[in-house]
Amino acid sequence: MAESFPMNGGDGTYSYTNNSQFQKQGSDLAKGMIKEAITEKLDTEISGTFQIVDFGCSVGPNTFFAMENMIEAVKNKCILQGLDSKNMEFQVSFNDHTENDFNTLFASLPLDRQYHAAGVPGSFYRRLFPRASINLAYSSYALQWLSKMPDEVSDRKSTAWNEGKIHYSGSPTEVVDAYADQFEKDMGVFISARAEEILSGGLMVLIMPGIPESAAHLPHSAGVLFNFLGSSLMDLAIEGIIDKAEIDTFNLPIYFPSDEEMRKVIEKNGCFSIERIELVNPMSQVNGVVNLDSLIIHLRAGMEGIFTKHFGYDVTEKMFNKTLSKSEEILKLLESGHFNSTQLSVVLKRK
Amino acid sequence: MAESFPMNGGDGTYSYTNNSQFQKQGSDLAKGMIKEAITEKLDTEISGTFQIVDFGCSVGPNTFFAMENMIEAVKNKCILQGLDSKNMEFQVSFNDHTENDFNTLFASLPLDRQYHAAGVPGSFYRRLFPRASINLAYSSYALQWLSKMPDEVSDRKSTAWNEGKIHYSGSPTEVVDAYADQFEKDMGVFISARAEEILSGGLMVLIMPGIPESAAHLPHSAGVLFNFLGSSLMDLAIEGIIDKAEIDTFNLPIYFPSDEEMRKVIEKNGCFSIERIELVNPMSQVNGVVNLDSLIIHLRAGMEGIFTKHFGYDVTEKMFNKTLSKSEEILKLLESGHFNSTQLSVVLKRK
Repeated sequence: MAESFPMNGGDGTYSYTNNSQFQKQGSDLAKGMIKEAITEKLDTEISGTFQIVDFGCSVGPNTFFAMENMIEAVKNKCILQGLDSKNMEFQVSFNDHTENDFNTLFASLPLDRQYHAAGVPGSFYRRLFPRASINLAYSSYALQWLSKMPDEVSDRKSTAWNEGKIHYSGSPTEVVDAYADQFEKDMGVFISARAEEILSGGLMVLIMPGIPESAAHLPHSAGVLFNFLGSSLMDLAIEGIIDKAEIDTFNLPIYFPSDEEMRKVIEKNGCFSIERIELVNPMSQVNGVVNLDSLIIHLRAGMEGIFTKHFGYDVTEKMFNKTLSKSEEILKLLESGHFNSTQLSVVLKRK
Repeated sequence: MAESFPMNGGDGTYSYTNNSQFQKQGSDLAKGMIKEAITEKLDTEISGTFQIVDFGCSVGPNTFFAMENMIEAVKNKCILQGLDSKNMEFQVSFNDHTENDFNTLFASLPLDRQYHAAGVPGSFYRRLFPRASINLAYSSYALQWLSKMPDEVSDRKSTAWNEGKIHYSGSPTEVVDAYADQFEKDMGVFISARAEEILSGGLMVLIMPGIPESAAHLPHSAGVLFNFLGSSLMDLAIEGIIDKAEIDTFNLPIYFPSDEEMRKVIEKNGCFSIERIELVNPMSQVNGVVNLDSLIIHLRAGMEGIFTKHFGYDVTEKMFNKTLSKSEEILKLLESGHFNSTQLSVVLKRK
């Protein structure tokens, strides 16, 4: 069974609800692409009920903006094609892990929504919907989460043992390969499950962090941040607050694939045509300077759960505070500019 | 907008999860009836996806038993008719108020379930699902909750003012009529919404507390309990702990219709044929003596929310404790046997 590390629920200081603007910027960049894909590529019958699913929706509000945009695009398509959309009804299903805070999600559903809303709990690395029931599938900043950390990287007998680190960034090839294998397996399962659920002619839009093939083994900005979190944990081990073995047995199940790795999985499955696959640099298109403190708090909103599960709340709190205190150092390193921070956008059409 | 008073969430002492066995006994009685209805009356195409909805599911576990039973009955029907059910998939949608504890519901979903699960938040006194999308609709011990308390009964200028009481049981005709009107309005809305959502040939099974037409204005056992809760509140008013005006402005939005009232609403709508409508006495068919303390705790699991919203937690706690201390008196009154406690079961088929 896939492990689950939900985003922070509720609406407090470190909640995902209040700390997911960066993810929104990424999705906003994809807006034009999604509109175009719906207008030009969507090819399911548009009448009766139109089913849209957000896989890995977390607790909002980003998912609500994305769903509204997609509905608007479908309606515009109807107008362009002279179709009568009056009798059309939209159903939007919000999927995330069972442990996701669906209560908060449901409570914050827009009152003026133009769709029937449903929540569908469960890992997206398995079937979740009836066969051929989805017109439009969407996933934004969720698929970088693997179903679990690769077994080898916390096995001290393996050549892929990732000693003293919590992520593959800057680690030996064996570690990177173990992560890459896990990604290939997981994404294969995801694509197969969706191939059964999506109607012929239906679209799937995937947005996630990714890296260019050429830079596959170079560190990237998120990796830099993860390494700082890791080194903050090592500081705590040196201070005697935690055992180093605890760090050795923990690895973030997060992977940033290249466009080529993604293409390979999709082509192996064979049920989808690739209508578009591209890498963009969201930060370069966002106005203003990134506030690093804010970025770390974003990271906390999304990742506190997984650290707390392994290290407990106190250690996690200390780790984030230690990392915050290093923010100038991190910023300097990031600004040296040798790192990639790109967004992978994919549009697939079910054959 | 319909008001919402969810059952107690979580899994603590007063949780609905741990205190809903009596509701289960009621549903169990209906099991045979449901099986028969599915076998003999269900008339939608059985292939592809079969959609079942529980309207007002609360947090389980009763809803899970009911859904499994219905799925078994549909599968048996397939076997009886020599249909191949291998390619059939079930989707079960669990509906309840947005404030229902869906997190608990999702966390307790049976791991070996043979259906795709979804949660659909929102009052069932409006549209919730796409047109013609449901094969089988079910609602158990939920429709006694009106969308709101009738306005007149807390209006001191109205002839239907229900002074010093919290329910219509034993009140003047004007009060009872105000409740009856509200029921007719609400049930009309419920039936219309479901008529749009249920496929032609699809079934709707409704189970709720009800009373025989002949006893419409006589007190019934639940009414007796409500009156004791009301008199406990009046005790607190006399002790100066609350203001009597608070009681005057509070009325439980709960109504027990007769089979004839139900029939009238369904026939007025006209979209459903009545396949079965009957009143049974669940208690008379349940082995063993009812434990009144347990019954009051059940009542608390289902109704604490609505009292807390109006009176606050402390007063509600005091009210339930006061009522518990009167349990012998209540039992004596109930055992005098002049009260009705019947279950209304209805099977409707979408024309």
